[in-house]
Amino acid sequence: MIKPRTPPGVMELLPPDQIAFQRMLDTIRRNFERFGFLPVETPVMELSEVLLTKSGGETERQVYFVQSTGALENGLNAVSAAVEAGQDAEQVRAAARELARPEMAMRFDLTVPLARYVAEHEHDLAFPFRRYQMQRVYRGERAQRGRFREFYQCDIDVIGKDALSVRFDAELPAVIHAVFSEMNIGAFTIQLNNRKLMRGFFEAQGVADPALQALVLREVDKLDKRGEDYVRETLTGEGFNLPADGVDRIMQFVKVRSTSHADAVAHLDALGEGNEALREGVAELREVLELVRAMGVPEANYALNFSIARGLDYYTGTVYETTLNDYPQIGSICSGGRYEDLASHYTKSKLPGVGISIGLTRLFWQLREAGIVDSAASTVQVLVTQMDAAHLPHCLAIAGELRHGGLNTEVVMEPSKLGKQFKYADRAGIRFVVVLGEDEISKGTVTVKDLRREDQFEVARGELARTLRVELAQAEALQNT
Amino acid sequence: MIKPRTPPGVMELLPPDQIAFQRMLDTIRRNFERFGFLPVETPVMELSEVLLTKSGGETERQVYFVQSTGALENGLNAVSAAVEAGQDAEQVRAAARELARPEMAMRFDLTVPLARYVAEHEHDLAFPFRRYQMQRVYRGERAQRGRFREFYQCDIDVIGKDALSVRFDAELPAVIHAVFSEMNIGAFTIQLNNRKLMRGFFEAQGVADPALQALVLREVDKLDKRGEDYVRETLTGEGFNLPADGVDRIMQFVKVRSTSHADAVAHLDALGEGNEALREGVAELREVLELVRAMGVPEANYALNFSIARGLDYYTGTVYETTLNDYPQIGSICSGGRYEDLASHYTKSKLPGVGISIGLTRLFWQLREAGIVDSAASTVQVLVTQMDAAHLPHCLAIAGELRHGGLNTEVVMEPSKLGKQFKYADRAGIRFVVVLGEDEISKGTVTVKDLRREDQFEVARGELARTLRVELAQAEALQNT
Repeated sequence: MIKPRTPPGVMELLPPDQIAFQRMLDTIRRNFERFGFLPVETPVMELSEVLLTKSGGETERQVYFVQSTGALENGLNAVSAAVEAGQDAEQVRAAARELARPEMAMRFDLTVPLARYVAEHEHDLAFPFRRYQMQRVYRGERAQRGRFREFYQCDIDVIGKDALSVRFDAELPAVIHAVFSEMNIGAFTIQLNNRKLMRGFFEAQGVADPALQALVLREVDKLDKRGEDYVRETLTGEGFNLPADGVDRIMQFVKVRSTSHADAVAHLDALGEGNEALREGVAELREVLELVRAMGVPEANYALNFSIARGLDYYTGTVYETTLNDYPQIGSICSGGRYEDLASHYTKSKLPGVGISIGLTRLFWQLREAGIVDSAASTVQVLVTQMDAAHLPHCLAIAGELRHGGLNTEVVMEPSKLGKQFKYADRAGIRFVVVLGEDEISKGTVTVKDLRREDQFEVARGELARTLRVELAQAEALQNT
Repeated sequence: MIKPRTPPGVMELLPPDQIAFQRMLDTIRRNFERFGFLPVETPVMELSEVLLTKSGGETERQVYFVQSTGALENGLNAVSAAVEAGQDAEQVRAAARELARPEMAMRFDLTVPLARYVAEHEHDLAFPFRRYQMQRVYRGERAQRGRFREFYQCDIDVIGKDALSVRFDAELPAVIHAVFSEMNIGAFTIQLNNRKLMRGFFEAQGVADPALQALVLREVDKLDKRGEDYVRETLTGEGFNLPADGVDRIMQFVKVRSTSHADAVAHLDALGEGNEALREGVAELREVLELVRAMGVPEANYALNFSIARGLDYYTGTVYETTLNDYPQIGSICSGGRYEDLASHYTKSKLPGVGISIGLTRLFWQLREAGIVDSAASTVQVLVTQMDAAHLPHCLAIAGELRHGGLNTEVVMEPSKLGKQFKYADRAGIRFVVVLGEDEISKGTVTVKDLRREDQFEVARGELARTLRVELAQAEALQNT
């Protein structure tokens, strides 16, 4: 007997939570499609050579490799053969190294597979290429609470060929707004910044080297935890040697958070003319803000935040983070930005893009921890009970009518006490219970018990599906107001 | 520069095919939910010890194993250490064997993960437990056309605790019927048989040993390819030594295909009383047929087929296969059956069940090869064109209204020639193109070009979303008749 258990670091859900999770996935997908993004799915495994174009990064150290039984056997045989042939230590090690270098690896994000996909199918795609992808990715994270080795990413990207207007950068906040409004998890703010603007500003403070900018930002990032004095000391002290007034300007800069659309525009105005990078960044952010407003995103849902940098070696223009106003400790629930070139490892074509990603597994886990996930109603809407085995054909026929009418319906197939059947429906979160006795059969009616409204009514069988559909539509309409 | 490519044996689709594939997945899911099945997802990787409870089977030889970078390095270091310490050949090999025995493996079907899931969460589930699961599975198949190493399985199972009425066996054909009717891929037949009936029949022919039954069935399976004479010779000849009349009876038996509900019942009647196994099997099939009819499955869509056996060591009662009438060469598109005990490796509880599986990746590939997959219309329903950059805010506002009205809408963000924008919509399969000029803006209208009906009309902006929704609803209604 083997103890049934999953590997550590994966999230497996019982049906009620799985339904809630699936509803979130559906909401994301519906809104991605609403904004004209097209679905893409890629295989979970990629050729190691293709996936791991950069070497030595933190992510690469977390990659999972895949080997078939045959490949493992061949590798093992090669080691055995080397040992048996009395080959020297280096040759044995070489054989073992082959065994430890699998041909395939599992994707650790959806961005590298997207780059590979767009480069591979470049001539079959229309640009700007708007794709969404919602699949699981794999990382050998250290096992700890809230860290997952398998998790969903829900990504959208717009990829241009040669060029991509900054106007697309304004679409993504509108998608983020649509997704999280419908997800109904509380007030949120989409925080905007621009890497060019940051670069320009830092250059003006005498921090021109991008690597140094990164180091400065890392120190500035400690403001909340360590306080201003610590950061000021570090940046003016040995190693950085920045002038005190420059450090003060930097600390003022990264504290900027706009409080309205007009305030955001005023913050941009206040930056003045500056150098070219700053001017470009300001112009881009101005256009993005303008169009975000034109797309109908309420100004309460977006703000400038000059502290947001994201991956410095990847993003080159607009950057986004999204936070829940009442749960700042959850951190960013949807991030992304503009990048210069998606697939330089795979194609000579220049493919600039802009994208965002929602890490849904982690988000779901955090929302559940914070108590913000509704234990969802069942996907099953109606339970047709069975009082007498002889009525089963009637029950099945009614279930057929309900399903035909668009209602998710389960039939009690094995007769049991009616009370037990009601209890089952109640615990399973099924709203309507249909009861069919001799009396109802002879009258051509059914009795419906509405477990949500704790109500009971009798309805003509021909009207049953329509009646329940109306009830469910009303409930849904109420929920959306 | 690295050549962008996927590993062999995976199916990756361009967006139009991905949309068609996704629609099939959606149809399956919708009908699984319609019949009251609950969603489950399990991690792609399982602990090797848990996944591989049986050893040496064909499937096990096809398993993919998963190792993290760290695990590979540790294993390699152990081999190196053994070599350096001058350990003997057996010790080096032992270290290499560790390296070749990864802790985790990828699921090769959804049945073993279901068994693990139900056993692990037994006390949190309500029985009969009705679950659906639609995820990818992995097998190191030999690379060849139409064979996939990564493919979707779409499974439903009903799991009982201790016992499960045969009535549940009748629900699955109703689900199969609903799924494939809606999928609209032509006429199909759900073929039914029963393992007990087969066992009883074969016992009566003197073939009592299950292993021998399997061998006989394997020979009988060659009837179509090798002809009756070949099979008769084999079974009466050395090795089998069956009497000629018994072989004839067997060949008659496996040829049974019912042509209607009444014909199916007549075939069952014709089997007579027989032994206990036969009687049980006949009684079960009779009940299943009766309830399948009561569930409203048209008799043209189901038939007895006494040649269907499925996995002999697994299924114990009802077995199903589903074939497309006009494409028999595709083989079974949905199979399954009744099993005695789902999770005997993981729990002492007896968990009988019945289930079916659709291998959607292979099915999609075959339907596309046969030309039965519609190149689907885009998920994008409306393209809002842009004639003048100054109109962009208007275009974005209209797009917002369309999306709010439930229409999947893309906006042309970078101005270009209108002809180019129409061509894009046409090639992308977008039905409605919205045009907005000075004239329309001043009148508060928009011009809509319907690329499907090659029609054009002007509509008040406030009526736009409703008008297009009505058009789409009409198209859908027409398609479903």
